[in-house]
Amino acid sequence: NFLDALAEVTPAFGVSEGDLKMCLKEGLVNYSPKVHDILTIGHRYVRQTKEKTSLISLLMHGPSGSGKTALAAKIALDSGFPFVRLLSPDNMAAMSESAKIAYIDNLFRDAYKSPLNIVVIDDLEKIIEWVPIGPRFSNAILQVVTTYLKRHPPDDRRLLIITTTSSYSVLQQLDLLSCFNNDIAVPNLSTLDEFNNVMVEKQFLDDKGRAEVLHKLGSITPRLDVGIKNAMINIDSATFGENPVDELVELMAK
Amino acid sequence: NFLDALAEVTPAFGVSEGDLKMCLKEGLVNYSPKVHDILTIGHRYVRQTKEKTSLISLLMHGPSGSGKTALAAKIALDSGFPFVRLLSPDNMAAMSESAKIAYIDNLFRDAYKSPLNIVVIDDLEKIIEWVPIGPRFSNAILQVVTTYLKRHPPDDRRLLIITTTSSYSVLQQLDLLSCFNNDIAVPNLSTLDEFNNVMVEKQFLDDKGRAEVLHKLGSITPRLDVGIKNAMINIDSATFGENPVDELVELMAK
Amino acid sequence: NFLDALAEVTPAFGVSEGDLKMCLKEGLVNYSPKVHDILTIGHRYVRQTKEKTSLISLLMHGPSGSGKTALAAKIALDSGFPFVRLLSPDNMAAMSESAKIAYIDNLFRDAYKSPLNIVVIDDLEKIIEWVPIGPRFSNAILQVVTTYLKRHPPDDRRLLIITTTSSYSVLQQLDLLSCFNNDIAVPNLSTLDEFNNVMVEKQFLDDKGRAEVLHKLGSITPRLDVGIKNAMINIDSATFGENPVDELVELMAK
Amino acid sequence: NFLDALAEVTPAFGVSEGDLKMCLKEGLVNYSPKVHDILTIGHRYVRQTKEKTSLISLLMHGPSGSGKTALAAKIALDSGFPFVRLLSPDNMAAMSESAKIAYIDNLFRDAYKSPLNIVVIDDLEKIIEWVPIGPRFSNAILQVVTTYLKRHPPDDRRLLIITTTSSYSVLQQLDLLSCFNNDIAVPNLSTLDEFNNVMVEKQFLDDKGRAEVLHKLGSITPRLDVGIKNAMINIDSATFGENPVDELVELMAK
Amino acid sequence: NFLDALAEVTPAFGVSEGDLKMCLKEGLVNYSPKVHDILTIGHRYVRQTKEKTSLISLLMHGPSGSGKTALAAKIALDSGFPFVRLLSPDNMAAMSESAKIAYIDNLFRDAYKSPLNIVVIDDLEKIIEWVPIGPRFSNAILQVVTTYLKRHPPDDRRLLIITTTSSYSVLQQLDLLSCFNNDIAVPNLSTLDEFNNVMVEKQFLDDKGRAEVLHKLGSITPRLDVGIKNAMINIDSATFGENPVDELVELMAK
Amino acid sequence: NFLDALAEVTPAFGVSEGDLKMCLKEGLVNYSPKVHDILTIGHRYVRQTKEKTSLISLLMHGPSGSGKTALAAKIALDSGFPFVRLLSPDNMAAMSESAKIAYIDNLFRDAYKSPLNIVVIDDLEKIIEWVPIGPRFSNAILQVVTTYLKRHPPDDRRLLIITTTSSYSVLQQLDLLSCFNNDIAVPNLSTLDEFNNVMVEKQFLDDKGRAEVLHKLGSITPRLDVGIKNAMINIDSATFGENPVDELVELMAK
Ligand SMILES: Nc1ncnc2c1ncn2[C@@H]1O[C@H](COP(=O)(O)OP(=O)(O)OP(=O)(O)O)[C@@H](O)[C@H]1O
Ligand SMILES: Nc1ncnc2c1ncn2[C@@H]1O[C@H](COP(=O)(O)OP(=O)(O)OP(=O)(O)O)[C@@H](O)[C@H]1O
Ligand SMILES: Nc1ncnc2c1ncn2[C@@H]1O[C@H](COP(=O)(O)OP(=O)(O)OP(=O)(O)O)[C@@H](O)[C@H]1O
Ligand SMILES: Nc1ncnc2c1ncn2[C@@H]1O[C@H](COP(=O)(O)OP(=O)(O)OP(=O)(O)O)[C@@H](O)[C@H]1O
Ligand SMILES: Nc1ncnc2c1ncn2[C@@H]1O[C@H](COP(=O)(O)OP(=O)(O)OP(=O)(O)O)[C@@H](O)[C@H]1O
Ligand SMILES: Nc1ncnc2c1ncn2[C@@H]1O[C@H](COP(=O)(O)OP(=O)(O)OP(=O)(O)O)[C@@H](O)[C@H]1O
Ligand SMILES: [Mg+2]
Ligand SMILES: [Mg+2]
Ligand SMILES: [Mg+2]
Ligand SMILES: [Mg+2]
Ligand SMILES: [Mg+2]
Ligand SMILES: [Mg+2]
Repeated sequence: NFLDALAEVTPAFGVSEGDLKMCLKEGLVNYSPKVHDILTIGHRYVRQTKEKTSLISLLMHGPSGSGKTALAAKIALDSGFPFVRLLSPDNMAAMSESAKIAYIDNLFRDAYKSPLNIVVIDDLEKIIEWVPIGPRFSNAILQVVTTYLKRHPPDDRRLLIITTTSSYSVLQQLDLLSCFNNDIAVPNLSTLDEFNNVMVEKQFLDDKGRAEVLHKLGSITPRLDVGIKNAMINIDSATFGENPVDELVELMAK
Repeated sequence: NFLDALAEVTPAFGVSEGDLKMCLKEGLVNYSPKVHDILTIGHRYVRQTKEKTSLISLLMHGPSGSGKTALAAKIALDSGFPFVRLLSPDNMAAMSESAKIAYIDNLFRDAYKSPLNIVVIDDLEKIIEWVPIGPRFSNAILQVVTTYLKRHPPDDRRLLIITTTSSYSVLQQLDLLSCFNNDIAVPNLSTLDEFNNVMVEKQFLDDKGRAEVLHKLGSITPRLDVGIKNAMINIDSATFGENPVDELVELMAK
Repeated sequence: NFLDALAEVTPAFGVSEGDLKMCLKEGLVNYSPKVHDILTIGHRYVRQTKEKTSLISLLMHGPSGSGKTALAAKIALDSGFPFVRLLSPDNMAAMSESAKIAYIDNLFRDAYKSPLNIVVIDDLEKIIEWVPIGPRFSNAILQVVTTYLKRHPPDDRRLLIITTTSSYSVLQQLDLLSCFNNDIAVPNLSTLDEFNNVMVEKQFLDDKGRAEVLHKLGSITPRLDVGIKNAMINIDSATFGENPVDELVELMAK
Repeated sequence: NFLDALAEVTPAFGVSEGDLKMCLKEGLVNYSPKVHDILTIGHRYVRQTKEKTSLISLLMHGPSGSGKTALAAKIALDSGFPFVRLLSPDNMAAMSESAKIAYIDNLFRDAYKSPLNIVVIDDLEKIIEWVPIGPRFSNAILQVVTTYLKRHPPDDRRLLIITTTSSYSVLQQLDLLSCFNNDIAVPNLSTLDEFNNVMVEKQFLDDKGRAEVLHKLGSITPRLDVGIKNAMINIDSATFGENPVDELVELMAK
Repeated sequence: NFLDALAEVTPAFGVSEGDLKMCLKEGLVNYSPKVHDILTIGHRYVRQTKEKTSLISLLMHGPSGSGKTALAAKIALDSGFPFVRLLSPDNMAAMSESAKIAYIDNLFRDAYKSPLNIVVIDDLEKIIEWVPIGPRFSNAILQVVTTYLKRHPPDDRRLLIITTTSSYSVLQQLDLLSCFNNDIAVPNLSTLDEFNNVMVEKQFLDDKGRAEVLHKLGSITPRLDVGIKNAMINIDSATFGENPVDELVELMAK
Repeated sequence: NFLDALAEVTPAFGVSEGDLKMCLKEGLVNYSPKVHDILTIGHRYVRQTKEKTSLISLLMHGPSGSGKTALAAKIALDSGFPFVRLLSPDNMAAMSESAKIAYIDNLFRDAYKSPLNIVVIDDLEKIIEWVPIGPRFSNAILQVVTTYLKRHPPDDRRLLIITTTSSYSVLQQLDLLSCFNNDIAVPNLSTLDEFNNVMVEKQFLDDKGRAEVLHKLGSITPRLDVGIKNAMINIDSATFGENPVDELVELMAK
């Protein structure tokens, strides 16, 4: 594992967008104006990094499956920066703590070699191995990540860090909020209208079928609270059921 | 142990159904329509994985001995997928933590090599070495398992993960429920009727003997709450007693 | 120590009854019908293992010194099984945690080689190094033992496990009770009559002396609560005192 | 990492001001007389160290971003001492605990070689890896730092230590305050006037634009509580917004 | 240290009374009939071990300095047994935990080679490294000691273990009391009379001086509560003072 | 570090007074009769060790900076004993726990080689790495130190141990007080008179200036509570201020 880690952490200088593109495989449904607003703020910080400030750290937070990773990936991929990288728990699974630390350290040292850089730190609470029972987490990993969140890149290099988390209050308790220059909330779907936009985009049944879904859902609960990620998978699940309408209602109302 | 682990984790590519078949050695008694319902839901997710979604994670939960492992094994074995594997505490007994992690890591990397895969993660709370006093558990093992629960297989590979647990509330406290796309409850036997079906299937005494058992049991408690696993062993124990009827009543009423 | 451990854990295939016989050095006094009842239940499970069920796990619990180990040893030695073994803290003293785990692992792997097996796990709470302050215990040892408590022997092998503990409530807190198919209570001496049977068997003084002991004891406390083990040592201690009657009364009333 | 550490900790004898100068890259805005007062006290302790006392330890404390590091750097750089060094978490990121300890130890041993020395210990709570949850920290690092805070340099060497922290109460709980000869508070911007001085210095818009900012800010809250560091970055962020006045107000009022 | 340990743990077979004799360097003052009673009980258990029971474990407990170690040493040295050994924290200072365990293990294995053995385990709470804050202790050392407290010597060997502790309630909390066959209290000096006996024995001043001490002490407190050990050192300290009477009173009343 | 440690712990046999003399660099101001009293008691125990008792352990305790180390050093240096040594946290900075233990162990083994010995254990709570949060400390170091506090030197060797601490209540909680034969309180300056004696000795200003200081101080607080160490540094600090009188008042009243 350690050798793998070393191998992975010395990629050629430059763009390595593969992982980030994977996060956008399902596309971005424009189900609400909020989606646009978030991208606008993100792009503005991209400009500030490019033209003025050597280090900006942003925090994107919201419930599980609300679309944080996809939106962070979108901002990064649209930046046109020569170095964009994803730091994600997926790439560090089964590594020892010290291998993870070496991996993180190398990723940032790599970033420091390019003039304009974006690092997306995905699922920060998972990277630090946070578990609410105890609570437990790796302080050693936490220390290296938070040091890099505040450490200015050398010389004239620029770095924009976009961190995602579904555990805002955990970061608060860990006193990490002062590490970020700004934080951006990514909400769940909250209205039937928003959900209808998703069904339309996913071509779920026809207008009548969707109306039936909305009607039944509305009679159970006036407001939704489901992330875009789960909404999209539920629509697919329902497609394989015997009664797609009822099953989708059941899955969305759970 | 570590060498053993390495040896075990590099099996030939393809189906390895031995362990799963062991879980069904005693067969499936159709003691209630609930049994059929659970299998139906399971098979539907098998179809969804095959035809559409790259990663589905299910959770089967219920009291100790309610039949979770047998049902998960049945769904997996019926899938016809080229790769079906069981990740169970039994295979990792006496391994060190790092050997367990390597074992789990390798099992999933193996799975990623086949186009259609099912992994049954049996007794998740035991895999993470959960003990309610403390509480204690291996966070390192937990991290690697939960990362794989959410990590999409590469390219066009598909993966259905069926996890079993008798400690639903533990997973809740560990904030793991958001890792699963759906969860399925596997209940205990709860009526004398259901129990009678099991006695009939096991050919315990004759109609009169079984009626006597049900009558005596019914006079002690109106409802049962015993898992199918224990019910079947109790029937066998009673067979070796001097007074099978009374002993079975006593064992079932304990 | 580790080499010793390895040496000890690869005994020749077959019966190894030495340690179990040591547990019966002082014999079994038939001081109450309860003694017979416990042996009867035990022998019944021996039959079930032999003829039907591949794995049975029993728990014998009771106060310190109540005779659990001697009774478990008796059941095992009477079974006529080709493989009977004692897993006891005594044999693992001063081993490291990993050596203990290897020792336990090997003992069970050994057992899996014989068609009919009994393993007596003596003093489970001590094997897991339980201490009520903290509380502390070795989770690694606990995991390996509990895995073997539920793991079916391969092929047609049969295994009866008899576990003893003087800390029933500890096992309860550790959620271990569901690992056992049945549990059997081994009580202390609770009446003067029972104690008299022991004095007679040990030939302590004559009828008059014993009557005096019982009379004096009875005037202090109407009921006894002393284990057979301590009762027998106290009788010996009194023999070496200047006034055996009074000293025995004092020791038994402590 | 360890080899790197060793390499870094044996710099040539003498001044090594690079890191300290980095801390002053954005200059010192004279936004309030308090800034001057802090520098005056600092310079006085520089004189005392030079002419009389072999060891002085100061503590600069204040909220996150209030300018502690910049002020400590200024005092050190103005001293004219042959040896001025910065001990900062940035230089120890990803080091193991023992590498950090060796690094700190070597830095002070280095300092003991020069007649007049200043060491700035930046972000003490981060150096000891403090996290409020637990709480957790490295006692080994804490021990080595606090020993050096009180250890007199050998022979006639002189040492002024300036420590910064944004967690005064943590040091209090750790019983560290008795390690310092004096402590100096570095406050946030607290009036609109102070903030105006910063806007003027940063040439944010014109008088009218700044007046609008102050007017809007004043209508939201009568008093500010923002550090100079964040105030300066917010001004830059606003510059890249579509409506700089409103965005600056929003950022400052957050 | 480890090599030293090994060297020390393989002494020639037989008596090794040196350390035990050291414990009696200051002799035994017969300051009260209680002293005789304790020795009588001890000697009786020596006889029982010699003639009948293969393992006896005693516990001598009392306040710090009350004379436990000296009395245990006396009983052991008077036994005439071929093997008498002292297991004391002093001989294990600065050893690692595993070296201590090996040392203890070897001492008992040694003991098992001789037909009649006494092991004095001195200061059990210190051997297990007990500290009330936490509380902390070495569970590994505790496990090895308690296993040997209950483990019968092989074949016809006999073993008497005399354990001392000044922390009876700690052993109680650790659930260790059931490891001992009997426990013997060693009290402090509690009357002026007892203290006078000690002064006489130590030839402190003359009758008049001692009467003055007793009178002054009596006017401060009606009852003493000082161990024999401290009483004897205080008498010596007073001898070196300018006013022995007053200083002794002050030291004894502290 | 470890090699350094070994090198340092094998000094030539005999007196090694360097470190102790460093503790008295600033001399002893006779600011109060209490200073003389403490030295008198100390010298008396020196005599007792020399002529009678093989082991005496003293504890000097008092607030931070009250002069404990200087007074202990004075008693040791005045003894004329061939072996006087200082065991201080300063000499063990950056050592690992095991290196510290080896260092302490060797220092005492060294001491056992000389007929008359004094060891000053300075800042015991710091030697055991005590931190009130947790609380945390090194139990391994604590064990080795406390064993040596009670361990009699071999043969006819004599040992006086003088321990200092500013955390008396910590030692109390750790149950260490019974390790000491006596304890001696070292108080802070508590009256203006005492402080005046210090100012005179340090030649701070003239009589009028000092009177002004005392007058102003007295109007703020009727009683002082400052250690001699801080008092002396404050006087020096004031000398470098623009207004020595006011600054001294401010520093002393803080
Ligand atoms: N408007 C949208 N915003 C975000 N994601 C969208 C949107 N429309 C569609 N998606 C899709 O929804 C999914 C969002 O999942 P994503 O992993 O980004 O959520 P998440 O909040 O990071 O989840 P988690 O909390 O599990 O990390 C992606 O597959 C993405 O392609
Ligand atoms: N309808 C049924 N559903 C499940 N198991 C059945 C059924 N009928 C019979 N069985 C048998 O009952 C037993 C159920 O045991 P299983 O190990 O699956 O339970 P479990 O819930 O996984 O237990 P545990 O909580 O101990 O893991 C198996 O031997 C299985 O063959
Ligand atoms: N009827 C009896 N049942 C059990 N033991 C008996 C009986 N009669 C005599 N004994 C003797 O009493 C002793 C019981 O001790 P044993 O070690 O079995 O008790 P235990 O409950 O296992 O003690 P512990 O709690 O210390 O493990 C043995 O020496 C055994 O030979
Ligand atoms: N008067 C001033 N005092 C301090 N810093 C100033 C002042 N004027 C401008 N600055 C600039 O403000 C920034 C203050 O940041 P600095 O890192 O010193 O704050 P800090 O309190 O150490 O922050 P942190 O709590 O994050 O360590 C620096 O960039 C500095 O150049
Ligand atoms: N009657 C007596 N009983 C015990 N000790 C006595 C008696 N008379 C004199 N002594 C002396 O008193 C001292 C008792 O010290 P000892 O170390 O045995 O006490 P302790 O209770 O073991 O102390 P600690 O609690 O520190 O271990 C010894 O030096 C012993 O020689
Ligand atoms: N009468 C006195 N008693 C003690 N120290 C004195 C006295 N007069 C002057 N001093 C000086 O005061 C200082 C006392 O410092 P010292 O380190 O001994 O205090 P301390 O109590 O050990 O401090 P800490 O709690 O930090 O260990 C020394 O420099 C000493 O030379
Ligand atoms: Mg995400
Ligand atoms: Mg199961
Ligand atoms: Mg037993
Ligand atoms: Mg700073
Ligand atoms: Mg003792
Ligand atoms: Mg000191």
